[in-house]
Amino acid sequence: MPEIRYDPLRIRWTIIATERGRRPHDFKIPKEEKKKGALCPFCYGHEDKTPPEIFVITDKNDREPNTSGWKVRVVPNKFPALRIEGEFKREGVGLFDKVSGIGAHEVIIETPKHDSHMADRSVEEIKDVLVAYRERIRDLRKDIRFRYILVFKNHGREAGASLEHPHSQLIATPMVPTVVTTELTASQEHFKRKERCLMCDILAQELMLGERIVWENEHFVIWEPYASSFPFETWLIPKKHLHDFALLNDDELYHVAYALKQMLYRIKVVLNDPPFNMILHTAPSTHERPGRPHYWSTIEYDYHWHIELVPRITKIAGFEWGSGLHINPTIPEEAARYLREVDVDF
Amino acid sequence: MPEIRYDPLRIRWTIIATERGRRPHDFKIPKEEKKKGALCPFCYGHEDKTPPEIFVITDKNDREPNTSGWKVRVVPNKFPALRIEGEFKREGVGLFDKVSGIGAHEVIIETPKHDSHMADRSVEEIKDVLVAYRERIRDLRKDIRFRYILVFKNHGREAGASLEHPHSQLIATPMVPTVVTTELTASQEHFKRKERCLMCDILAQELMLGERIVWENEHFVIWEPYASSFPFETWLIPKKHLHDFALLNDDELYHVAYALKQMLYRIKVVLNDPPFNMILHTAPSTHERPGRPHYWSTIEYDYHWHIELVPRITKIAGFEWGSGLHINPTIPEEAARYLREVDVDF
Repeated sequence: MPEIRYDPLRIRWTIIATERGRRPHDFKIPKEEKKKGALCPFCYGHEDKTPPEIFVITDKNDREPNTSGWKVRVVPNKFPALRIEGEFKREGVGLFDKVSGIGAHEVIIETPKHDSHMADRSVEEIKDVLVAYRERIRDLRKDIRFRYILVFKNHGREAGASLEHPHSQLIATPMVPTVVTTELTASQEHFKRKERCLMCDILAQELMLGERIVWENEHFVIWEPYASSFPFETWLIPKKHLHDFALLNDDELYHVAYALKQMLYRIKVVLNDPPFNMILHTAPSTHERPGRPHYWSTIEYDYHWHIELVPRITKIAGFEWGSGLHINPTIPEEAARYLREVDVDF
Repeated sequence: MPEIRYDPLRIRWTIIATERGRRPHDFKIPKEEKKKGALCPFCYGHEDKTPPEIFVITDKNDREPNTSGWKVRVVPNKFPALRIEGEFKREGVGLFDKVSGIGAHEVIIETPKHDSHMADRSVEEIKDVLVAYRERIRDLRKDIRFRYILVFKNHGREAGASLEHPHSQLIATPMVPTVVTTELTASQEHFKRKERCLMCDILAQELMLGERIVWENEHFVIWEPYASSFPFETWLIPKKHLHDFALLNDDELYHVAYALKQMLYRIKVVLNDPPFNMILHTAPSTHERPGRPHYWSTIEYDYHWHIELVPRITKIAGFEWGSGLHINPTIPEEAARYLREVDVDF
């Protein structure tokens, strides 16, 4: 079983893959595999090349499981970072701490079309992917061992994608990850002082100033964050306060899909199809656990779900890693202007 | 002037390069420039291709500034992330915060030899580089605007190096960067409870357990951290408690240089000259500032300087960025074994 280890100096957890340890000669500069057609495990007809499916969206009433005819297909990751089986244990190791590497690691195969960029798909097709995100989050939250489900997408080799066929991933973790905890804590503290949601306050200010807004409609805003860590870092924020993406109904997901297409299309045009990471930040699992306190009792009021997109066109080098301070060579207000000016005809 | 902006949701500062903003077409997948001989600005005879030198180590008594004959040469970065000139200001921007992008950004040209890997240089040559680090830290600390001086080295394109000629860099910042603050705070809190240094405690435990130790002598230990974020992440720790690298004398730096050669050589052999980032974590500037509290009053006792090395053989992708949780596919105890077994004949 993998271990999740805690560093008391850096106040940071790391997942250590203890089972399939990579030896020195296993590391080569990874190349995105261009496995098309016959070789791609995510294409139609190759459903037996993945572990059996967990969830599927299909139009066919008579489809046999693990055959073609699906629109979105969710399967366990063949090489999971965390394991679904096993007991969750917390242990001290002298000064250190570890917890068992319990979790889930799933792949959301977004479409049967091998070459389809998400920005070029129909809103309906994108909505189906979001439905899969929602259903998997809802299902995994039933497992009391999991505290958080992080949905993310790596597009392009530079962004860490190892397969070309369009896919997203999710990892369920037995603790709320640091970056999410920071957002949750900042939101909770703001609410404690003001009884207002921090993101709602930022939203009001950004809409008033306007200079970092890329696009908005009745339901959503796309903006460049004031302190963007990366050039053309772009966020999608719902105007309506809601802590949890998993509460959205299909109609609402259709609106998210339309806004997401706006975001992805503009980034694709302005940066010429860059590699990117996309991350869904939503509420953690909040169900009561026997003998454990409920940490996020005001979460309905203080947290605001959103999607973060990070084009990977700069390097994270020694300074960034050693300081936590990123150097962003593009002014967010200028990036917003470029993205705003894109001609969009959908 | 660049700006350093604060994100209230992510509790994170970012340097925004407002002057030479990079536009969309400026981003190409960066290639390490193979500028040898005639084209390399860091080779002998091209001293006029860099800004004038700030510090130099040379054997020649009659050397003219900015000519060849140097052993180590420090120059301002031609494209600095922060600016040395200007007044330091703190400003609120509604919910946001910014401070002026005051700082220093320097390049330490480690040797005139274009193709020399630091691991293959003599201990004396490495010591000279460390002397340059120390002298620049000492000098920049005289500027009361700078709170921290981060020395780092990017080796190889994948690690963010844009020039091939061996060089390190330093950036002086007007605040203590997040990652350093986390280490300082963890150390301070440990000391407050126990009146012992956290790193000294870890050192005692790691030496007792032995399984993550790569190498040690009278003065230094090289180990794989218990919760290494990256495969083959390797740290160099002095056995003697000391908060500040800049206090070391030349003899002590010679010992650091020998240990550093041990670390770099083993990494180079085991991973076949991988790209890497190396970071010096030492104490912040602690001089008194008029009208400002002294945050790190116990620093002499609680902080322990060290060097962190991170081979860049895995990608930082969406999960890592969105969660702060890294997935390390190599068990630190196994990495330590590989590095321990290297045949070293110096």
